[in-house]
Amino acid sequence: METLKKYVSVKDEDHFYHQGAVELLIFNFLLILTILTIWLFKNHRFRFLHETGGAMLYGLVMGLIIRYVTKSPDVESGTVYECEKLKSGPSTLLINITNQVYEYQYKREISHHNVNGHQGNAMLQKMTFDPSIFFNILLPPIIFHAGYSLKKRHFFRNLGSILTYAFLGTAISCIVIGLIMYGFVKAMVHIGQLKQWEFHFTDCLFFGSLMSATDPVTVLAIFHELNVDTDLYTLLFGESVLNDAVAIVLTHSISIYSPKENPNAFDAAAFFQSVGNFLGIFAGSFAMGSSYAVVHLTKFTKLCEFPMLETGLFFLLSWSAFLSAEAAGLTGIVAVLFCGVTQAHYTYNNLSPDSKMRTKQLFEFMNFLAENVIFCYMGLALFTFQNHIFNPLFIFGALVAIFVARASNIYPLSFLLNLGRKQKIPWTFQHMMMFSGLRGAIAFALAIRDTGSQPKQMMFSTALLMVFFTVWVFGGGTTPMLSWLQIRVGVDPDEDLKARAASQSAPNLDKNTTKAESAWLFRIWYGFDHKYLKPLLTHAGPPLTSTLPEWCSPVARILTSPRAYGDQLKDGDTVYIINNDELTENYESSAHIPVPAQDSTASIQATGKEDIQEGDLGLGGYKLQLEHTAGQPQKNSLA
Amino acid sequence: METLKKYVSVKDEDHFYHQGAVELLIFNFLLILTILTIWLFKNHRFRFLHETGGAMLYGLVMGLIIRYVTKSPDVESGTVYECEKLKSGPSTLLINITNQVYEYQYKREISHHNVNGHQGNAMLQKMTFDPSIFFNILLPPIIFHAGYSLKKRHFFRNLGSILTYAFLGTAISCIVIGLIMYGFVKAMVHIGQLKQWEFHFTDCLFFGSLMSATDPVTVLAIFHELNVDTDLYTLLFGESVLNDAVAIVLTHSISIYSPKENPNAFDAAAFFQSVGNFLGIFAGSFAMGSSYAVVHLTKFTKLCEFPMLETGLFFLLSWSAFLSAEAAGLTGIVAVLFCGVTQAHYTYNNLSPDSKMRTKQLFEFMNFLAENVIFCYMGLALFTFQNHIFNPLFIFGALVAIFVARASNIYPLSFLLNLGRKQKIPWTFQHMMMFSGLRGAIAFALAIRDTGSQPKQMMFSTALLMVFFTVWVFGGGTTPMLSWLQIRVGVDPDEDLKARAASQSAPNLDKNTTKAESAWLFRIWYGFDHKYLKPLLTHAGPPLTSTLPEWCSPVARILTSPRAYGDQLKDGDTVYIINNDELTENYESSAHIPVPAQDSTASIQATGKEDIQEGDLGLGGYKLQLEHTAGQPQKNSLA
Repeated sequence: METLKKYVSVKDEDHFYHQGAVELLIFNFLLILTILTIWLFKNHRFRFLHETGGAMLYGLVMGLIIRYVTKSPDVESGTVYECEKLKSGPSTLLINITNQVYEYQYKREISHHNVNGHQGNAMLQKMTFDPSIFFNILLPPIIFHAGYSLKKRHFFRNLGSILTYAFLGTAISCIVIGLIMYGFVKAMVHIGQLKQWEFHFTDCLFFGSLMSATDPVTVLAIFHELNVDTDLYTLLFGESVLNDAVAIVLTHSISIYSPKENPNAFDAAAFFQSVGNFLGIFAGSFAMGSSYAVVHLTKFTKLCEFPMLETGLFFLLSWSAFLSAEAAGLTGIVAVLFCGVTQAHYTYNNLSPDSKMRTKQLFEFMNFLAENVIFCYMGLALFTFQNHIFNPLFIFGALVAIFVARASNIYPLSFLLNLGRKQKIPWTFQHMMMFSGLRGAIAFALAIRDTGSQPKQMMFSTALLMVFFTVWVFGGGTTPMLSWLQIRVGVDPDEDLKARAASQSAPNLDKNTTKAESAWLFRIWYGFDHKYLKPLLTHAGPPLTSTLPEWCSPVARILTSPRAYGDQLKDGDTVYIINNDELTENYESSAHIPVPAQDSTASIQATGKEDIQEGDLGLGGYKLQLEHTAGQPQKNSLA
Repeated sequence: METLKKYVSVKDEDHFYHQGAVELLIFNFLLILTILTIWLFKNHRFRFLHETGGAMLYGLVMGLIIRYVTKSPDVESGTVYECEKLKSGPSTLLINITNQVYEYQYKREISHHNVNGHQGNAMLQKMTFDPSIFFNILLPPIIFHAGYSLKKRHFFRNLGSILTYAFLGTAISCIVIGLIMYGFVKAMVHIGQLKQWEFHFTDCLFFGSLMSATDPVTVLAIFHELNVDTDLYTLLFGESVLNDAVAIVLTHSISIYSPKENPNAFDAAAFFQSVGNFLGIFAGSFAMGSSYAVVHLTKFTKLCEFPMLETGLFFLLSWSAFLSAEAAGLTGIVAVLFCGVTQAHYTYNNLSPDSKMRTKQLFEFMNFLAENVIFCYMGLALFTFQNHIFNPLFIFGALVAIFVARASNIYPLSFLLNLGRKQKIPWTFQHMMMFSGLRGAIAFALAIRDTGSQPKQMMFSTALLMVFFTVWVFGGGTTPMLSWLQIRVGVDPDEDLKARAASQSAPNLDKNTTKAESAWLFRIWYGFDHKYLKPLLTHAGPPLTSTLPEWCSPVARILTSPRAYGDQLKDGDTVYIINNDELTENYESSAHIPVPAQDSTASIQATGKEDIQEGDLGLGGYKLQLEHTAGQPQKNSLA
């Protein structure tokens, strides 16, 4: 008997393993289908459905099958058992059932109203994986890849505008969505669909912050494929990358906003604490991410002789940046983003050519895989998540809110930016940016992080629908929209820069004047970076012995790479930026684009500095680019 | 109050996420340390401690710290709660604790004697991750990489010997360990350390089979670095790769061996059922793995225009081969191994050059990471696993058993093989193979899969100690042993082959005779492969229109790749093997190696066919190489 039971238990366990395999197999199957579909679409140049949309569609169908076709073998779990002896939920529970001790692990807290809806289809439960997998494993490679593949030149040329959209724009979007949703919630309470005390203004703001994370991955993929105008691409890419970080920190700050008395009343102290939290978390995460990249001193180790070790170290340190930030209570996504940017700026120069390619390809691949897994999972979640609350009024409200919020982000900020920008953001670009306000992985991940209460469940279900809607409708409409707005495509980014430089070289006279009067802080930063940081951290740049003062020379000699003396002049990237002339290059070529010339050209100097106040947060060194742009004489804004 | 509690729960959840981050961070930290150590060692050419040994050492130290330095915040979990209402353990349990419903997830069954030892350090529990992660995520890339990076030429030249060691040798090793352990168990019962009914002979055999999985990853890494003699390398590599697969299927077969009456008595029906299981599972897994690789028909899709998609598909299909086999109740490891071999043989030829490099580097990287994670985890497990049972007599018995078993595997089989082999396996090689019988990841993974009962826990603890001992002592002793045995190093495998071919070209006379009289089945397989399979599945080989009969030509024309007509002659690999002359090449060059000439040269033809009976299992097409070797006139066996 004893023996028999043992064998039965072995078989049970085997069955258990195979279950795990089945779930992974389902994901693999969905991903394979997605890849084959992408290939088919790419081959036939279909652009109405992007890979992410396809992945979501397949996930949806699979979720439908799992929900309604598979059986429900585990009916026991609908029942709630009483336990008077326990005071709180321990992380592990040992339970004696008919003389066998079983170990149970804490999963989550469940609201009372969900207990009945908890029908207990074991397959469904296994397909809904732990949200911490999203945060710790799937998101970091996507965000790191975004930071690592940032096209620095174009990014820095538009830094001011990007920061404005990302910080100020996200804040506007969050508040507008929060206000609109609060109106809808009031209406719902009025018609009796909701109890007053369930949904506070802070909950509305929470929803607003998570819905403010735009993810135009579909749009950008199409832009990349069609080689859309570089400035538009950079603006959207930069905005979406930084906007994710801002939205995540904002959501976190709002979720820990705890007014002492009435949660609906405004508590100034708690508000300022939240703002302080936001700034502290953002700055801390930024510092942690950058320092991890800097710590990665591959300069003096001869690690480049072993590309595998180098790649491994690179991968592990970047992931550690994320994990350390999370462990320290900061935001890992922000840390890993700036880690990626810093790695691209400094560490990349120290890598061996083999490692450069390996790291690029590795992160490209991980990004591709993680993205498709997330979109498949979003499709699955519509049917496999068991506590959906679909409220038509709330959904309609959310739809209105994200439109209005996107509009009040893009158009007013573009207007303000155009006052200061030399090269205006034309109306067509503004419409396209308005149209590209897709919601994606980050909004979903933020929403799924907490689905314990009824309001949170309603938010999750609504956020999921918004993702579906925006990805399919806006993602699918990108190509028609581009041609309707007559935005130029087929631009080679490097050629574009060169062409601008060439067209710029004729009016050589005002170059020196613009150089002298503008962007002094920006140039100080780059000077410092070029003279000290780059030589210190990489093999590039001038030798430290020539840039540091005389009395530092013993130290400088130790720290300077022998390579630095040789290829001092080859450091194309830094030279490119330090020259600073190219910052004036991009004001000529907007003639290609039909610019509706109705925006005002007045009050340039005055307002040019106002619209970057948000960009100042923790990134002080960068903000002067905008001023530089603002400070230049308007040459051909109405070209 | 309601609100406050909600915020507290949010904070709790945040804390929960950070915990996950902390555990991952610990692993990252260990891996970073390992990489830096490897680099240091490689730089200074230390070879007494390999990376795997280093990873294990760091894991050990970290385990010690976690065990004795971190506090135990979760004391609740030592208590067992009664539940009379339940009849069996459901997969999810909802429990009402002080008016809050908590969801608990089934983890495992616990033996009664472990309940007290279950002290409940939450940190320790979180560091001991689910064994299914080993099987589904960490092992597949390692095994696939082994299959994918197989050096086919050298492998096929020694196929007969490799199959003999892998199949017959593993079976011998399993039985010998089982018998010796049974003796020790009897002794333990005699002195009262163990109750008779706890440990059956099948348990001993189970231990024997899991301890038969050798993993000379350390040794092979050093061999690779030192460029040790190619034949020795191939023999060891081939043996270890196939031996893992055999040991896993063997363990599985033994675990489901269930005699009807007395578990100690021999039940012929149950025995033959187990043998049948073994054969069925092995053949099924082989078929599934190979078919997944063949399904991957990148030949007619133009997927190679998109290397990212191609790499993704390659990765997903290979993993799916593993998961499908597991889901179907077969052995995923065997499937993924043969998937790797088949991918390397057929699919690799269809990949774009970019994908060829990407897939190679990707799997190399994943292999590196997974291997080091496993070895770190093994170090950790010594202190973090909470149900260790260290029995000195059992451990001593296991140490004796693995030595005796390795000896009774290598020496008798080498003797038998040498009777048939043209190029003898010299004594030095045999000693080296004996010495390289390290235990590693597979033995550990098999042991950790089931730690529910006391005998299984004792096996797990013992297996862990054997891994430590063999990796540190034998792994560290490889370089001294190599120089002590005077085995030649610094051999370029390709140069080696050419040199042999050159030295062979002089006695051109008997080439035709050997070609005609030998290896007809081997040559039939390769002819079939070259003429039909390769042209069908890849772009290589002669066009099908020329190899298929006249009446098939319409089909042939469709199936033939346009490229095949062009580069018919470039298919170096197949031509190399089909020529078959090289099979005779390797009988000349053993003069470099000091061969102790005491092995008998008698009875060549007679016994040459006996020692491959085990190699016949499901791989019939290959076995003739050995006969081919056996059938040739002994030219210079005592050179």
